[in-house]
Amino acid sequence: MENKPKLTIVKIGGNVIDSELELKAFLKDFAALSGYKILVHGGGKIATKIAEGLGITPVFHEGRRITDKPMLDVAVMTYAGLINKDITAQLQALQNNALGFTGADGNMILSEKRKNAAVDFGWVGDIVSVNHELVKVLLLQNVVPVFCAITHDGKGQLLNTNADTIAGALAVACSNDFEVNLLYCFEKKGVLSNADDNNSVIKKLTFDTYTQLREEKVIHSGMLPKLENCYDALTKGVSTVYIGSPEMIKQGDTTCTQVSL
Amino acid sequence: MENKPKLTIVKIGGNVIDSELELKAFLKDFAALSGYKILVHGGGKIATKIAEGLGITPVFHEGRRITDKPMLDVAVMTYAGLINKDITAQLQALQNNALGFTGADGNMILSEKRKNAAVDFGWVGDIVSVNHELVKVLLLQNVVPVFCAITHDGKGQLLNTNADTIAGALAVACSNDFEVNLLYCFEKKGVLSNADDNNSVIKKLTFDTYTQLREEKVIHSGMLPKLENCYDALTKGVSTVYIGSPEMIKQGDTTCTQVSL
Repeated sequence: MENKPKLTIVKIGGNVIDSELELKAFLKDFAALSGYKILVHGGGKIATKIAEGLGITPVFHEGRRITDKPMLDVAVMTYAGLINKDITAQLQALQNNALGFTGADGNMILSEKRKNAAVDFGWVGDIVSVNHELVKVLLLQNVVPVFCAITHDGKGQLLNTNADTIAGALAVACSNDFEVNLLYCFEKKGVLSNADDNNSVIKKLTFDTYTQLREEKVIHSGMLPKLENCYDALTKGVSTVYIGSPEMIKQGDTTCTQVSL
Repeated sequence: MENKPKLTIVKIGGNVIDSELELKAFLKDFAALSGYKILVHGGGKIATKIAEGLGITPVFHEGRRITDKPMLDVAVMTYAGLINKDITAQLQALQNNALGFTGADGNMILSEKRKNAAVDFGWVGDIVSVNHELVKVLLLQNVVPVFCAITHDGKGQLLNTNADTIAGALAVACSNDFEVNLLYCFEKKGVLSNADDNNSVIKKLTFDTYTQLREEKVIHSGMLPKLENCYDALTKGVSTVYIGSPEMIKQGDTTCTQVSL
């Protein structure tokens, strides 16, 4: 059997990005990870603040944000500009040769504008393909790619794309060349069996248990698409998937949830 | 003698970026250029507009802008976010595998905060080094690097850096591995012998002629640092340097100024 090099893909969400101190602490841990690695980051509340500052009113449909043109511009400015470059510069200071990406850069993540939806969510893209060849070239140069939640349609249009989905698609695309460990960091310690108790982490969530807990409504709302991404990755060749707090990337941390088939 | 591959480095200024149509036309011409190439772009008026929108008041000292922290954030958002990603996505649509960079990305351009100046211009960086090895790896992958006017100090701080200087430093750093042709595009057809006559282009500006015209004050103000960059590049190994309008990148254009030693 072929021995593939290991690749760790870490996704962090808005909660880490919104706190300067938490982000700094996380980046220090991330920088200390040995081997090939990729960071994927979400947006946080900065985009909302900048949109407000510019007098742009966010548009919602049943609680879900619509990405109209002004909001897309703000997302590009904030995610690809402010946040992505701050993270990149900080990782450089920690001796990681970080390189920031939108999906347009190097044609890394090609997507298409979401269609056939009952509602037009605006400039939102669903992933079509990942340029894993270029990812590989860069990783072998010891570059640490840092992805934000912006992709492109190949026709000149940037699109807003869910960061969880980006992390999953990267993990799947790289699993031909690498043994991929995918880590989803969020605000809880893992998948909880009791939403009110942060210590009720399910250590190992098999697909059977997941199906059962979903039916019992123990797992619901935001966790569902997150876990769908996990199982999708696992069925498509990703070796291991974990969900937990940013702390979990520290060596020896065992508080998180391992998602398994 | 070694036969180096050719590399074209094109710098465009704010005037092209401020016009959606001009930028589109330029990018079409740039995309059609054969061989290895790099694009460097300035900022344009969008940053000023966004700063105004956010209620940030620009600070000036004797007509020169001071880059305070809020203005640096706006520069990062606008140059590295909005403009750089728009250009990258447009070039992708033109079948150029563009990849956007600040100096922090891939540690491409390391700079240090300007010091010992009579005035503190704020978060402005002077270039220390260029990661030409990574530039070469990417060019050989047929990637088209697109640089904006942001660098970093290696300690986590992003810095505003003149785009002309970035283009010059890239050209010099790449001239070991490539035969570099450096093209500075600006709002005139070339260096003029009569500032009021756009048709008075000096076809070939030798260093002797430059020195003479500078003493006669025919060449003055903004043209001086631009030409200093040109002669610096030429003395440090860059093969050819041209100054002219964005039109000059079209094949067969002969209206611009060739700067020569």
